[in-house]
Amino acid sequence: MSLISESAVTTSTTTLVNITFVPDGKTIAVESGQTVLHAARKAGIHIDAPCGEQGRCGKCRVRLLEGMLAPLTAEETALLKPAELAEGVRLSCEAVLTDHAVIDVPESSRNLAHRKGAAELRRAVTLAPMTRKVCVTVPQPSIESGDLRDDLTRLRAVTPGVTGVCLEAVRELHDAIVAGNATVTLTLYGDHLIDVEPGDVLSNHYGVALDIGTTTVVGYLMDLGTGLELGIQSHPNPQASYGADVISRIEYAQNNPAHTEALRQSVTSAVNTILRGLAESAQIDVNSIYELVMVGNTCMSHLFLGIDPVSLGHAPYTPVITDSMEMPAADLGLAMHPRGRVRTLPNIAGFVGADTVGVLAAGDLEKLSGLHAAVDIGTNAEVLVSVNGKVIACSTAAGPAFEGAKISHGMRAQPGAIDGVSIGQDLFIHTIGDKPARGICGSGIIDAIGELVRVGMLESSGRFADTDDVTHLPEPLRARLTEEGVVLAWAAESATGHDILLTQRDVREVQLVKAAIYAGVVTLLEKLGHRPEELDSLMIAGAFGTYISKEHALGIGLIPNIDVDKLVFLGNAAGIGAKMALLSREEYQTVCGNARAVGYVELAGDEIFRDNFAMAMMLAPGCDG
Amino acid sequence: MSLISESAVTTSTTTLVNITFVPDGKTIAVESGQTVLHAARKAGIHIDAPCGEQGRCGKCRVRLLEGMLAPLTAEETALLKPAELAEGVRLSCEAVLTDHAVIDVPESSRNLAHRKGAAELRRAVTLAPMTRKVCVTVPQPSIESGDLRDDLTRLRAVTPGVTGVCLEAVRELHDAIVAGNATVTLTLYGDHLIDVEPGDVLSNHYGVALDIGTTTVVGYLMDLGTGLELGIQSHPNPQASYGADVISRIEYAQNNPAHTEALRQSVTSAVNTILRGLAESAQIDVNSIYELVMVGNTCMSHLFLGIDPVSLGHAPYTPVITDSMEMPAADLGLAMHPRGRVRTLPNIAGFVGADTVGVLAAGDLEKLSGLHAAVDIGTNAEVLVSVNGKVIACSTAAGPAFEGAKISHGMRAQPGAIDGVSIGQDLFIHTIGDKPARGICGSGIIDAIGELVRVGMLESSGRFADTDDVTHLPEPLRARLTEEGVVLAWAAESATGHDILLTQRDVREVQLVKAAIYAGVVTLLEKLGHRPEELDSLMIAGAFGTYISKEHALGIGLIPNIDVDKLVFLGNAAGIGAKMALLSREEYQTVCGNARAVGYVELAGDEIFRDNFAMAMMLAPGCDG
Repeated sequence: MSLISESAVTTSTTTLVNITFVPDGKTIAVESGQTVLHAARKAGIHIDAPCGEQGRCGKCRVRLLEGMLAPLTAEETALLKPAELAEGVRLSCEAVLTDHAVIDVPESSRNLAHRKGAAELRRAVTLAPMTRKVCVTVPQPSIESGDLRDDLTRLRAVTPGVTGVCLEAVRELHDAIVAGNATVTLTLYGDHLIDVEPGDVLSNHYGVALDIGTTTVVGYLMDLGTGLELGIQSHPNPQASYGADVISRIEYAQNNPAHTEALRQSVTSAVNTILRGLAESAQIDVNSIYELVMVGNTCMSHLFLGIDPVSLGHAPYTPVITDSMEMPAADLGLAMHPRGRVRTLPNIAGFVGADTVGVLAAGDLEKLSGLHAAVDIGTNAEVLVSVNGKVIACSTAAGPAFEGAKISHGMRAQPGAIDGVSIGQDLFIHTIGDKPARGICGSGIIDAIGELVRVGMLESSGRFADTDDVTHLPEPLRARLTEEGVVLAWAAESATGHDILLTQRDVREVQLVKAAIYAGVVTLLEKLGHRPEELDSLMIAGAFGTYISKEHALGIGLIPNIDVDKLVFLGNAAGIGAKMALLSREEYQTVCGNARAVGYVELAGDEIFRDNFAMAMMLAPGCDG
Repeated sequence: MSLISESAVTTSTTTLVNITFVPDGKTIAVESGQTVLHAARKAGIHIDAPCGEQGRCGKCRVRLLEGMLAPLTAEETALLKPAELAEGVRLSCEAVLTDHAVIDVPESSRNLAHRKGAAELRRAVTLAPMTRKVCVTVPQPSIESGDLRDDLTRLRAVTPGVTGVCLEAVRELHDAIVAGNATVTLTLYGDHLIDVEPGDVLSNHYGVALDIGTTTVVGYLMDLGTGLELGIQSHPNPQASYGADVISRIEYAQNNPAHTEALRQSVTSAVNTILRGLAESAQIDVNSIYELVMVGNTCMSHLFLGIDPVSLGHAPYTPVITDSMEMPAADLGLAMHPRGRVRTLPNIAGFVGADTVGVLAAGDLEKLSGLHAAVDIGTNAEVLVSVNGKVIACSTAAGPAFEGAKISHGMRAQPGAIDGVSIGQDLFIHTIGDKPARGICGSGIIDAIGELVRVGMLESSGRFADTDDVTHLPEPLRARLTEEGVVLAWAAESATGHDILLTQRDVREVQLVKAAIYAGVVTLLEKLGHRPEELDSLMIAGAFGTYISKEHALGIGLIPNIDVDKLVFLGNAAGIGAKMALLSREEYQTVCGNARAVGYVELAGDEIFRDNFAMAMMLAPGCDG
C-alpha cells in the first residue's frame, strides 16, 4: 500500500509536495526545492546536524521509502557507503525535495533532546490517582425536617466510601459548608477525607513525581484531573555540599541524628524550590498539590525521609527499609498541601533503589514473557533480568564516568556539554543547547569512543592508534590525534579557550565502567542459565541512557551484542515509574508488589561476576576482541 | 446456710467475735464491746455518721442478719420505726457487739465517698487495648547467610501482622536494633508500628482515660499490661475563664479560629498537667503513655479537638462531628508519647455527648433485654431509654442546680460542701472532707429537700411549712425554719461565719430541674409506648448521681417512682466508658457502633415533653401530689 495518494500540486511559481515522515506518521505540504532537513523541522521532527548542514558529519542520515528526491550530491556519495546508497539512505541536509516522498527518520539521526520516549510514559495508564476530588451538596439540617445529623454524617450520606477523616478537614468542615452555601469540594486520599473546600474547585488537583538523584533533583507537575504533564523543574541536589557521592554522604550522616537531619533538610529545600517553581510556572497554588511520589536510590530515599543510612555504608549493605512509605506532606515540611500525601516507591536493596523500581514499572518487566534485561545507568548501574516475569537484580559498582566524573574534560549533561560526536571528513560535535563546548558528557563519551573505534583511531584494546596507522584518514581528522589524546573541540571554538580532549586515561576509565555493566548483565543471565544471545530485549534506562547511540553502545560492547531492534530506550525510567504510580493507584500497588518479588543478587565477592568483568574490557561488539 | 461457723473465742479479759459485713463479704475478728460502726471501719467499710455517733441522725442504719447484738438503746427506739425494728434494723453507732454477727450495710448508710461502684468498672472487660507491646529478637543480616533483607523486613519476619509503620519508628529502628543487641520492644497500634525501643521494656505500657467536664477535667492512669488503675488526677477546666458554661464558651469561640484555638490550648494545658501529674505519682515516663481515650460533652469534644462549636449554639444544634476521632498525640500537643494515639468517644447529638456514650457502655444498655432508662445528671441531664437493646436519647435543659449553680449557698462537690443531710432529733449534715460547711452541693440538696419533705417542714408543692404546722417537731429542728429558709448549718459552725441556708427560691429552682429530668424519662418512655412502672431498671450516672440517696431521689420525684431495688448507680459512667474503651479495643468498637445506633429525640418544641414537665413539679414519689 502506497502512503502517497495524490499528485504534487504545481502552481505558477512553486510546487507543493506532500512529505510524510515515519515512524512519526506526520505529513506536511511544503514547497519543493527545500532540503529534507528543513521540511522535517517544519513537521516538528528534530534531525541532528552537528556539522551545520554542510554534508560533512553524516549524522543526519534518513532513508527514502517512497517517492523521489533530487539526485545525490557529492557530499552524499563521499560519506555514504554503497550498501547505504542501495537502501535509499540520504543526508537530510543535502537531499532536496522535488516531489511527494515518504522519509524514514531513524532514531540515531534525531536530535538528542527530542528522541522519542524521553520523559514520557511508555504506555497508557488508567488515570485513577490515590487522591480524588468530589464536589457534593450537603443536605441542610433542621428540626422541622427531623434531619439533626452532624455535618460529617450528612456529608457522608452524599459521599459514599468516606471511612476516615483528617482532624484538620473536620476543623474546616462547617465553615466550608457555610461559605460554599452547602456545596463543597472534598479531597479524598483512598477513603480518607483530607480536605474540604467551599464551592466547586474540582479542577485544582495536582500531583508531583519527584526523582531525587545524587546530583540532580527533578520534579514533574501532573494534572491529576487530566493526567497531563504541566511542567518539569530540576535543581542540583544541595546535599552535594556534604559529599559528591552517596558514600561520602553516608559517612557524614552515620550515627549522628543532627547530620542526618541536615541532609534531609538540605534536599527538602531543593524539593520545595522545585514545588514552588512548578506551581508558579503553571500558575497554581502549591496547596493544590495533593500528592507526591518520590523515587531515588536507596540512600536518597533514606535521607529524604530522615533515616540514618549508616547500614548502607558497610557490609552487608542492608537498608533500614525497602518498603514504600506514606505520610502527610506536613511531616516532611514539603511546600504542598500539608495534608497531601507523600509516598516513596519501594527500594529493592542497599544499592538497588526506587529508581530501579521505576525501571521495573516503565519496562513492565514483570509482565513480559521471554528473556529480558534492563540496565539503568547512572552513578552506578543497576541491572535487572527477567525470565517470564520472574526478575532478579544486581548493582554494579560502575562508577560515575558516564556522569562526567573521572574524565579529564568530563561534565554533566548541561549546556555546552558535548553530547554527540560523529566522524566523517572531520570529527563533528553536538553540544547541549548548541553552546560552545565546555566539556563532554556521557552520551558524548560513548559516541566519541564508538566513532574513534569505527574509523580506527582507537584500537578495540582501548589503545589510541599511532599516527602512522591513520594516514588514510582526512587531514583535519588526523590532526586531532595528539599526544594528550584526541581533540574533540579546538581551543578556538571551545568555551574554555582550551582544547577539549579525550585522553588515554579517559578511555581506560570508560572501559572499567562498561566492563562492569556488561558483566552485570551477563552474570545475571548466567545465574538464570541463559546467554546474552537469547535475550528478547535489552532496555537502557536513565537520562543518560536516553541519549546514547544504540550502534555505539553495541559497537563498544557496553552491552551484549544483540540485534539493534531488540535494544529499547526506556527514557528516565525512575521519573516514569513515579509518574505511573502517581497517576494510578493500581500501578502503584502493582509496582510495590513487584518490587518485593525481585530477587537481589549481591555481586560483591561473586566469582562469576569477577570472571565476566575481566573478559569485558574489549571495546568491540560482544566485547569480542 | 449459716454464715457463722464457729463459736466466739473468750479469753480471760476480752471476747473475740467474728463479724461479717454483707454484701461486701468481709469478715473480721474484733473484741466484743465495740459498736458495729467501729468494727465496720476496721473492716474498711465506711458507714456515714453525720451526728458524730450520738444516735441522733439515724443515718448509720444497718441490719442484723444473723447472730446477735447488745439490746436496743434509747436512741435506737426513739429513731427507728416499728417496721424497721421488726426487720432487725439498728443504728451502727449505738449497737454493741457481743457475739458473732452478720451485718448488712445498705448503700444508703455508706459514706458518700466510699459508695460502691464509683469510679470502678461495672463488669469484667477483656484486657486487649488498641496498643500492644511485643519484644522480639531480630535476625542479623549477612552476606554469608544470604540474608540481605532490610531491617524492617527482618523485623516483620518475627512480628507477624505489622502492616503499617510510623516514619519516626523507622528512623529509630536501626539504632534500637544495634543498642538492644538485636532485641527490641515494639509498640503496635492495631497493625501499625508506632515505636521501637532497645531491649525488653514490655512493662512500660500505660494509657489514660480522660473525662473533660465543663468544670473539671479528670484523668485515670491505667496500666495497659495489667489493666490496673494506677492513679487519678483532676484539674479545674481552665476554659472557665472564657465562660462558666458551654453556651458562653460557644459564644466566645464561634467563627473565630483564634478563639477556638485559645480554648483548645486552655484545656490542653490542664490535660497536660494531669498527664504529668499521673506520670509523676506513678513514677513512670510520660512517653510510656501510648493511649488516651477522651470523653466529654459534645462541646468539650469539639473544643478538645479545636473544632469551632458554633453550630451547637443555635438551632438545630447539630454538631460538626459525632463520630469517634483518632489521631497521633503530637497533633494535639499532649504530654504523652508523641506517636501514641488519642481517641475521642463518639457523641450522639449536640447536647448528648461522649459522656452519655459512657453511660451506654457502663450500663450495657444495648445488651439488656426489657425496658431500661438511664439518667446522666451533670450540668444538663441526658436521658437514655432502651427497649430490648434499641436505645433512644434526649437532653433536658435541666440546668446546673445540682452542680450548685443558681442555689443561694450552692457550691460544687468540693471540701466543705454539704453532701448529706439527715433529720432525726435535729438536722445533721455531712460535709466533704469533714470540713466546716461552706455551702451545699447536689447530693446535699436532694437529701435536704427529701428529709424536709419527709418530716413535713417542706410541702410537696414546694412551699415551706408555716411554723405553726411543725410544732410536733423537736425544738432544735423547728428553730431552723426561718423567714429566709431552712438553716442547714448555723453561722457558729460554718466556715463562712454565716448561716448556710436552703431558701424558698432554691427549692423552686430544684423543682424546675427535677421536673425536666423526670419529664425527660417519661417522655422517652411514652415515645416508645411505655410507662414508668414497666421499667426493669433505672440507672443514675454522673459523679453527682453516685452520691445521692436513692430514697430521696424517689421520694421527691426526681425520677419515676419505681422499686428501689430497680435503681442502680452507674458511678462516673463517662470515666468508666473511657476506661472500657481504653482497656479493650472490642469495647471501643462496640461503643462506637452502639452510639451510632442511638436514636436522638429533640425535646425543643416537643408537646409531650411540655405536658410532662408541667406535671412533674410536685416533690413527691412519682410527682403524684
